[in-house]
Amino acid sequence: MRQLLDKPLASAELQAINAYWRAANYLSVGQIYLMHNALLTEPLQPEHIKPRLLGHWGTTPGLNLIYAHLNRVIKQRDQSMMYVIGPGHGGPAIAANAWLEGSYTDTYPDVTRDAAGLQTLFRQFSFPGGIPSHVAPELPGSIHEGGELGYSLSHAYGAAFDNPDLVVACVIGDGEAETGPLAASWHSNKFLDPRTDGAVLPILHLNGYKIANPAVLARIGDEELTKLLEGYGHRPYLVDGDDPELVHQAIAATLDVVLDEIAEIQTEARTNPGTPRRPWPMIVLRTPKGWTGPREVDGVPIEGTWRAHQVPLTGVRTSPEHLAMLETWLRSYRIEELLDADGRPVAELTDQVPAGERRMGSTPHANGGLLTRSLNLPPLSQYAVDVPQPGSGPHEPTRVLGTFLRDVMSANLQNFRVFGPDETASNRLDAIYETTAKAWNAEILPTDEHLATGGRVMEILSEHTCQGWLEGYLLTGRHGWFSCYEAFVHLVDSMVNQHAKWLKVSRALPWRRTIPSLNYLLTSHVWRQDNNGFSHQDPGFIDHVVNKKAEVIRVYLPPDTNTLLVVSDHCLRSRGYINVVVAGKQPQPSWLDHDSAVLHCARGIGVWPWASNDDGDPDVVLACAGDVPTLETLAAVSLLREHVPGLKIRVVNVVDLMRLEPASEHPHGLSDAEFDAIFTTDKPVIFAYHGYPSLIHRLTYRRHNHANLHVRGYKEEGTTTTPFDMVVRNDLDRYHLAMDVIDRVPGLGHRAAETRQWLTDQRARHHAYIVEHGEDLPEVRNWQWPADLS
Amino acid sequence: MRQLLDKPLASAELQAINAYWRAANYLSVGQIYLMHNALLTEPLQPEHIKPRLLGHWGTTPGLNLIYAHLNRVIKQRDQSMMYVIGPGHGGPAIAANAWLEGSYTDTYPDVTRDAAGLQTLFRQFSFPGGIPSHVAPELPGSIHEGGELGYSLSHAYGAAFDNPDLVVACVIGDGEAETGPLAASWHSNKFLDPRTDGAVLPILHLNGYKIANPAVLARIGDEELTKLLEGYGHRPYLVDGDDPELVHQAIAATLDVVLDEIAEIQTEARTNPGTPRRPWPMIVLRTPKGWTGPREVDGVPIEGTWRAHQVPLTGVRTSPEHLAMLETWLRSYRIEELLDADGRPVAELTDQVPAGERRMGSTPHANGGLLTRSLNLPPLSQYAVDVPQPGSGPHEPTRVLGTFLRDVMSANLQNFRVFGPDETASNRLDAIYETTAKAWNAEILPTDEHLATGGRVMEILSEHTCQGWLEGYLLTGRHGWFSCYEAFVHLVDSMVNQHAKWLKVSRALPWRRTIPSLNYLLTSHVWRQDNNGFSHQDPGFIDHVVNKKAEVIRVYLPPDTNTLLVVSDHCLRSRGYINVVVAGKQPQPSWLDHDSAVLHCARGIGVWPWASNDDGDPDVVLACAGDVPTLETLAAVSLLREHVPGLKIRVVNVVDLMRLEPASEHPHGLSDAEFDAIFTTDKPVIFAYHGYPSLIHRLTYRRHNHANLHVRGYKEEGTTTTPFDMVVRNDLDRYHLAMDVIDRVPGLGHRAAETRQWLTDQRARHHAYIVEHGEDLPEVRNWQWPADLS
Repeated sequence: MRQLLDKPLASAELQAINAYWRAANYLSVGQIYLMHNALLTEPLQPEHIKPRLLGHWGTTPGLNLIYAHLNRVIKQRDQSMMYVIGPGHGGPAIAANAWLEGSYTDTYPDVTRDAAGLQTLFRQFSFPGGIPSHVAPELPGSIHEGGELGYSLSHAYGAAFDNPDLVVACVIGDGEAETGPLAASWHSNKFLDPRTDGAVLPILHLNGYKIANPAVLARIGDEELTKLLEGYGHRPYLVDGDDPELVHQAIAATLDVVLDEIAEIQTEARTNPGTPRRPWPMIVLRTPKGWTGPREVDGVPIEGTWRAHQVPLTGVRTSPEHLAMLETWLRSYRIEELLDADGRPVAELTDQVPAGERRMGSTPHANGGLLTRSLNLPPLSQYAVDVPQPGSGPHEPTRVLGTFLRDVMSANLQNFRVFGPDETASNRLDAIYETTAKAWNAEILPTDEHLATGGRVMEILSEHTCQGWLEGYLLTGRHGWFSCYEAFVHLVDSMVNQHAKWLKVSRALPWRRTIPSLNYLLTSHVWRQDNNGFSHQDPGFIDHVVNKKAEVIRVYLPPDTNTLLVVSDHCLRSRGYINVVVAGKQPQPSWLDHDSAVLHCARGIGVWPWASNDDGDPDVVLACAGDVPTLETLAAVSLLREHVPGLKIRVVNVVDLMRLEPASEHPHGLSDAEFDAIFTTDKPVIFAYHGYPSLIHRLTYRRHNHANLHVRGYKEEGTTTTPFDMVVRNDLDRYHLAMDVIDRVPGLGHRAAETRQWLTDQRARHHAYIVEHGEDLPEVRNWQWPADLS
Repeated sequence: MRQLLDKPLASAELQAINAYWRAANYLSVGQIYLMHNALLTEPLQPEHIKPRLLGHWGTTPGLNLIYAHLNRVIKQRDQSMMYVIGPGHGGPAIAANAWLEGSYTDTYPDVTRDAAGLQTLFRQFSFPGGIPSHVAPELPGSIHEGGELGYSLSHAYGAAFDNPDLVVACVIGDGEAETGPLAASWHSNKFLDPRTDGAVLPILHLNGYKIANPAVLARIGDEELTKLLEGYGHRPYLVDGDDPELVHQAIAATLDVVLDEIAEIQTEARTNPGTPRRPWPMIVLRTPKGWTGPREVDGVPIEGTWRAHQVPLTGVRTSPEHLAMLETWLRSYRIEELLDADGRPVAELTDQVPAGERRMGSTPHANGGLLTRSLNLPPLSQYAVDVPQPGSGPHEPTRVLGTFLRDVMSANLQNFRVFGPDETASNRLDAIYETTAKAWNAEILPTDEHLATGGRVMEILSEHTCQGWLEGYLLTGRHGWFSCYEAFVHLVDSMVNQHAKWLKVSRALPWRRTIPSLNYLLTSHVWRQDNNGFSHQDPGFIDHVVNKKAEVIRVYLPPDTNTLLVVSDHCLRSRGYINVVVAGKQPQPSWLDHDSAVLHCARGIGVWPWASNDDGDPDVVLACAGDVPTLETLAAVSLLREHVPGLKIRVVNVVDLMRLEPASEHPHGLSDAEFDAIFTTDKPVIFAYHGYPSLIHRLTYRRHNHANLHVRGYKEEGTTTTPFDMVVRNDLDRYHLAMDVIDRVPGLGHRAAETRQWLTDQRARHHAYIVEHGEDLPEVRNWQWPADLS
């Protein structure tokens, strides 16, 4: 690792930047501890101290140091810059800097940049009714919470894509560096185009310790660490020390060099297309944990150890000795030199602050809704497949969707990307490659296809990295589409939690403008994992997302190609949601033409009159949600219509799953009257559902007819087998659905009992056939909706 | 990267090993394609071909090559060895080798090692009623499915811990290497003790492509790749080529060297304690994807490209040309030289097979239940806290549990480990450090505490790596305990899915012996994230696990310290389950003494008579599950008893959540009669639940009294605030629970209305107080269960 020994700061500049750093450190400690006496105008008393001491001091001085020095280079170069803070629990640092630079007061005018505002700033931190302890949505300048570690670097890359003038400084904690998602995301540099994307400057902050342990990367020696970072495609620069003067010089010198290097790489790439990938510079900052805090408390070392992780002095309300140590610590920053008598930062500090939107707390990139431009979407009808009658086709829904996404891409270059873990082609969206390639900045061989630097389809075999890139891209105001195998989207369950929480909190912050929705297409789904089997079968992501706040969650199960198109178009137009769309990629019948699809999706749920014969008064309701359940339901209906001709059947299809929830629980929820009109209040309902049946019960248990609701879905039975055997194993097949109807509709008489036996026999015949032939019964494979029924 | 040019194989040995490899390749292709004519005794016809062509050819020849060469060194050294197959979709390879070595027939006697068995082997692969396409539990010798990528290396380390004589060869696909969990797990080598653990030999298989893209690590050049792997703490050896003879020599030479190096590291460490960590050898195997398969089909290159990923020739049932190519391909292995007329492997092949349990398909380590020894558990009562009356304490449940786990550890060295992402001390289990340290084989500084090579507490800031280690440890028959922040256990949602699926499938395989349960302690839970706030609040892991098969899932919510002890003891004795235990770490009242706790946990649910005054005929049931809900429920009861004295209240506590489900759905489910006896059939039930309320509805919607069930729980409201404010924000507080009772019990009259207003006022007073003082109302903080009520 290269360590620079230049001393670029003149004495006055060094003094000034150190003063700024002292001020930020004081403001950070003040937020953690002080409820009163913010300016230390009187001797510190126990009653000035908050009753609950919360906050993470350990990482804070390092974050403050970096902030101060980034300000210097921003001003010097008029550089557009963002700050992504992996150690997001260093919230006090960012609040302190935002207040010093004025962006905090711009955002929250009641927190004035004076003594009164300082008092508010201190008191509100981690205080009921105040702001949380992390770099949460409440903090201006942030797109990254950092409470759950691992995503800083992928967020930073997401922000940098298509922002050629932006440098995203990204602090990675050495704890975070141990997580899988972070470890994977180092390779993001092979997917960035220096011509049209901005740059990411990773700053690995080795303060040596996590909560209770040393960090791995702090204990493998410089040689191994250097190799690792070079292996990741970086040129690491080391800034190492605990003497502030020396560290100020070292980091200033290093920032000058790395920003020059970044500019050089960009200039070279932008003037000589085809320039091969070069290592990007990065910084390893090795400073003590809890630097400038208490060295030792109660006989044990604090500064530079894991004990500085959170609050280093905990007994200040009861121990006079601790209180005195805190006062000494606070006064060591000589705040009286840094804030004037009114509590305003002195000119020496404010002179260092960049102007306007160059302040990292005021960059519009960190409030992406400000920059969001609506997508230019082509007219949808031109992609619709022709459906002269129900059951036309077959069509491959995602393949058709690919043609739409291709043209969305063409019409929105620089504003739209498609993400997927090596699955865009497998998910049959490959029409997109007619207009753009997959991003790839590593070696390309002649046999490769659709790979190019500057490609706009983002594929790496890491769901975490795809999700992180996409979140970063959305949070900075752009649009995206994530296609994923249904089962493996669970890999990002926890990331979805964090994004949903971010959206939920942001809704209550008027200054945060709404960003585009996070759109998932879950395909290669549970019912058609013929090739991969049991490990690839899990429809539970829907269950997971509906635990989040109703306002931010939408779930769609389009039953065919045209409805998938309509739903996808809707999702791309929406803002501020997490949209989950589940759809198959295999050839399947189409039920609705374009106009019907538009109408059906607008309603979200509806009776399909062409499949029903109930004349407004059904004996039974067959409901379905999802493409395969819809197919099996219609096949069951055709069997029942033939074998139990007098039975009055109503067929209901659900596209928008949240229509099932009461209106009180979800904005899309049907009123009880609407629900009752569709599902009746007293007739049996056989509901064929794509996922785990319990979800339908969970959504509908308050409905009048819930006691008559009988749900079939995935019950965790599967292996590598035929498509129809999958539904048979889970009792979701046409035969079993028809048996369910016969079992639940009273008074069907002798003929129905015979039919029931016939249906049972069909299941046995199916089983014997597949074991013999290895494929489904011809009448199942070739089944078509009888034209005379519509 | 070092590339060895020695040629250790004599000509005959080379011929023999190549013959073995040809046989394994033939058997692999046969499994993918052939339904009949397994020995190619007649010209290939379309009707010999399976109707559905499933399987992954691309990775298979590489897996076969490694298997053959590992056999050689196993025999040569009498080495105990396991094979963990990251590219688990290379199932045909492992089935082929297990059949060749006889372990397949030992496991499944009907699949004989002759022509008839070969026919069965071929037909059953990816065939209905047969075996799945991946290295699933059905395959002998495997502990790792590989369908969801990322866990091979952490599984391998888990298997190696405490097995000092074992070498775990671990093939990592270059696709898998892009995932976060895999990227993180390289650092596992800093947690392995060469004195008492076995060794892991990573074999990074660079066949260059994923499903549709090149692999990142195949395109960064040798220099960066070498640095990366050295940075991970390895010494990489490269085996590179496409000429079988040369590759056989190279991999043989390399395996000789790396196994010598492993032995040398172990000998050195075992004879000189304190030997510093050395880089462990590993292999980079660069061979063509789909090697020995068709070079080109329909004018496009196949071998060596992503097109070889799955089935390279897909038109064989309809295209005579493809059929001919397949026949040429199959005959290229000259199977007639490798199997005798009866279809038995010739002696040249069987002579290469290791003996008995040295065969990788027969190692007992891969069928861990065979090796499982029950834990030696100390008498539980000695750890119980004294509870002279309900509300005694306060006690910190997890801190007390730590003393029990400490002694479990002492009594079961080499058979028990504790896992946690940097949180064992934060979760207050640190008594364990009295008996063992945290594993750490990197640099140790004087200020460090409880770190040592050979420590048995496994801490890395990667939930994925912890989970992978633990799974590997359990699957090889040992016991473990995983403590995790509740919110962040979602990081391993998808890993839990895979483990649950493995357990579910294994239950149906009599030869697979049951392994110890996977035990989670979820603490630092949603209600007490005072410090961290909203990002750390998510109780949805329970919802996630209950979607898995009921037979393998158990969920426990002990309300206090003694019940936590009882539940934990129970989990450590159990086998074959995933046990989720949720418990707090903060000081809290204890309700039950040891004997009562034993009884209550045995029942899993029960009326608490000391808190009830219903005389068998309640006006209302107050139910609770979880420590904080139990506290708030009892506080609500005390308020109601004082303010609404005539009200007859029954208090029900639920420890074993699955007792709520119908007996038909879960083995622990109460019968309807039992449920009705506890919850009544017609009285209001106010249920205070730890997690998302919908889960309780989901579990109970079939119960008679469900319409009267009113659940309070987490509704996704939170921030950094006081503990009581957290329950207030989610309407789970004592005041609100008491209001719920008043609102639902008819005929309480005027006095109750006054009480309701008083309760509302208390909530307002609470709010005003915390905003002013930053901590909870003294009467809330100091509340105690009134002794006169018990």
